[in-house]
Amino acid sequence: MVSCVSGSRLDPWVDSYAQRARGMTASEIRALFSVASRPEVVSLAGGMPFVQALNMDMVAETAARLLKERGATALQYGSGQGDMSLREQILEVIGEVGVQAHPDDIVVTTGSQMALDLVTRVFCDPGDTVLVESPSYVGALGVFRSFECDIVHVAMDEEGLNPQALTDAITAARSAGKKIKMIYTIPSFHNPAGVTQGPQRRAEILRIAQSAGILVLEDDPYGLLGFEGEVPRALRADDAEGVIYLGSFSKTIASGLRVGWAVAPHGVREKLVLAAEAATLCPSNYAQLTVSEYLATQPWREQIKTFRELYRERRDALLESLQAMMPEGTTWTIPAGGFYSWVTLPAGLDATAMLPRALAELVAYVPGTGFYVNGAGRNNLRLSYCYPDPDRIREGVRRLAGVIEAELDLARTFGTTHTLATFHGESTPTPDMA
Amino acid sequence: MVSCVSGSRLDPWVDSYAQRARGMTASEIRALFSVASRPEVVSLAGGMPFVQALNMDMVAETAARLLKERGATALQYGSGQGDMSLREQILEVIGEVGVQAHPDDIVVTTGSQMALDLVTRVFCDPGDTVLVESPSYVGALGVFRSFECDIVHVAMDEEGLNPQALTDAITAARSAGKKIKMIYTIPSFHNPAGVTQGPQRRAEILRIAQSAGILVLEDDPYGLLGFEGEVPRALRADDAEGVIYLGSFSKTIASGLRVGWAVAPHGVREKLVLAAEAATLCPSNYAQLTVSEYLATQPWREQIKTFRELYRERRDALLESLQAMMPEGTTWTIPAGGFYSWVTLPAGLDATAMLPRALAELVAYVPGTGFYVNGAGRNNLRLSYCYPDPDRIREGVRRLAGVIEAELDLARTFGTTHTLATFHGESTPTPDMA
Repeated sequence: MVSCVSGSRLDPWVDSYAQRARGMTASEIRALFSVASRPEVVSLAGGMPFVQALNMDMVAETAARLLKERGATALQYGSGQGDMSLREQILEVIGEVGVQAHPDDIVVTTGSQMALDLVTRVFCDPGDTVLVESPSYVGALGVFRSFECDIVHVAMDEEGLNPQALTDAITAARSAGKKIKMIYTIPSFHNPAGVTQGPQRRAEILRIAQSAGILVLEDDPYGLLGFEGEVPRALRADDAEGVIYLGSFSKTIASGLRVGWAVAPHGVREKLVLAAEAATLCPSNYAQLTVSEYLATQPWREQIKTFRELYRERRDALLESLQAMMPEGTTWTIPAGGFYSWVTLPAGLDATAMLPRALAELVAYVPGTGFYVNGAGRNNLRLSYCYPDPDRIREGVRRLAGVIEAELDLARTFGTTHTLATFHGESTPTPDMA
Repeated sequence: MVSCVSGSRLDPWVDSYAQRARGMTASEIRALFSVASRPEVVSLAGGMPFVQALNMDMVAETAARLLKERGATALQYGSGQGDMSLREQILEVIGEVGVQAHPDDIVVTTGSQMALDLVTRVFCDPGDTVLVESPSYVGALGVFRSFECDIVHVAMDEEGLNPQALTDAITAARSAGKKIKMIYTIPSFHNPAGVTQGPQRRAEILRIAQSAGILVLEDDPYGLLGFEGEVPRALRADDAEGVIYLGSFSKTIASGLRVGWAVAPHGVREKLVLAAEAATLCPSNYAQLTVSEYLATQPWREQIKTFRELYRERRDALLESLQAMMPEGTTWTIPAGGFYSWVTLPAGLDATAMLPRALAELVAYVPGTGFYVNGAGRNNLRLSYCYPDPDRIREGVRRLAGVIEAELDLARTFGTTHTLATFHGESTPTPDMA
């Protein structure tokens, strides 16, 4: 890691940047990761999938076979929309969450983050409103901000996006003369909230969006990673024209491949392909065909089952140790899948201010404020159980509980903990953003 | 390939798109490629590198070794700025064109197309002026258009971008109250013009840009593929603060990897990383580390030499057969490297109108109009010699010469050929755009 040689150097181009570049600011949680990645720190911060659970020899053989048999294609430019065979295979994957589509409806992207970016680019003028959950995925907020959207948080409850709050937000934004371009939601195993919309809730949200004529942007990276019974049915499964569905192989195969996709209504899909070509010409054939070869030759459903069991065990370790060790007044969500639980600290505690003390005790988390654009979330933090093993998770929660106890002692002595920590530093790495 | 089920379906979201989506229109040359990719057609159209010249078994072993030894890293999220070891290796590669930099100055992107996109996103507000060559790379025009730039073509001569024309264009744009954000240039082995700026010319262009205080965006995908003696020295080699340099492994290793980079002044680099994270979180570790492993273990300079010799032989086949077969009044540029020659048809002929007739005679090219935003180029076409072997190139030129002869006969009989062909169709593939 090379440190910034910044400070004294002035930027001669500072007056040349586009208006939108003002929205591109370093997240306060970014600097955390250079510390959190030290081996002595138990990181409950990053959302890195545990790719070590893959059979690496098998992946190596898959890649080698692909290159030997179809190297001239795998190493060549491809279609801007993505490889046709892979798009057909994606239909099988999204069939698991009830989505019926045509290969022509699918646009393959460099991770689903790129799909988020393309959708925003195609729909959002500066000042357009996007409704997001409260809290919402930090990477989506970054995209919306970089296109100068007006981001409005809508309250959630234990079943995710709250219908009454959604209706109220639509009414309020429209009364204020705002153009609402979309509702961005993660219905299943929410990042960071750790909650899931039930079937009834999904129907209500769709109904509200349809009657208001607002596009739904459904982000579903964790949909297949449910721990209990059937995986949830996607919103897109019940509305092909009103929903853009985003999927990813980052959590079901491997994030380092950067292969995601959008399923979009016909007219939108055409725009997305044009935007994708401007953005990257075409997604990597090498990565796409590696995924395609893997899906065609390996027991991918079994592998997802392995991931599910692994993450369930880790989720259980987290919940059990939270239950056993957290001071009174601390609450958390119970995720039925995915990677995250959302913690609310006892009243008066500030998760951002507490972070340096947690790092000093060798445990890392993501403070809640990063998941809001409105300064909310000071009392919250996100815990990830995807990467450390159960023993490390328990040790991490033990350390965190100690830090919270100490904060409570301080608060009882001096009132609320209002020291605001500010972080500056390196732009690497950002595994948490996924 | 699946054909569009378009036509009767109306787009319910047609009123929701962003202003910038209006600039996202399908290129007229796009449809050509579904025809041009048929095996009976000699395609002198696409800019696909001849990746078959790689030793595929060796690439397969490289990938397999990477996954076996460093699979957990290769398949994981990485830094938004790109892998540190790869950035160090990129310094060696750009050292070949005289660029001295620090690993921290480099941002790895999903092909250099993404770097083009990020630079434009960071610098250009709607209506900002970008100065481009005349003709210019179609993929760059697409990016500038998608960010609603005002694109101004600047005349070229046999040494590329013309200094007097550049000075005049700057004066004219500024007199008209326009904000000029950058000068976009491909100094070496230009796509599509096939010309190269000499050392004197480069110095003049830098001097003009510096004295006007305008950023230079130097696009150099072909820089290492020169056929004669030393490779040209990059503009960036002589100005670290005023030039953003874009490079790519697409032509020196393989385009299907989608690994490119930008070398940028410090302040710009920080913005580019933030924009990159919004766009894709991070580039693919899988592709990046495959490149890194290849550079570390394979004779990459030898491989580039192999590519150079291969493309020189093809260039020679093209030039010799153009010389032998083209009707009088046809002229073309003599590329000293890269993939392309730019042809000017005899007066009165229209390369766009001629294309369907060329395809009927089983030869494909790219009509000149795609490389302009102002309707120029009707009299021009781009020929690529990178992909077909020398015999196919000769056969292609023979067919093309016959088509031009026939057009000349028609023109002599009926006046100019003014039937305008319009192409509509599939959004795939777009290998030409590279």
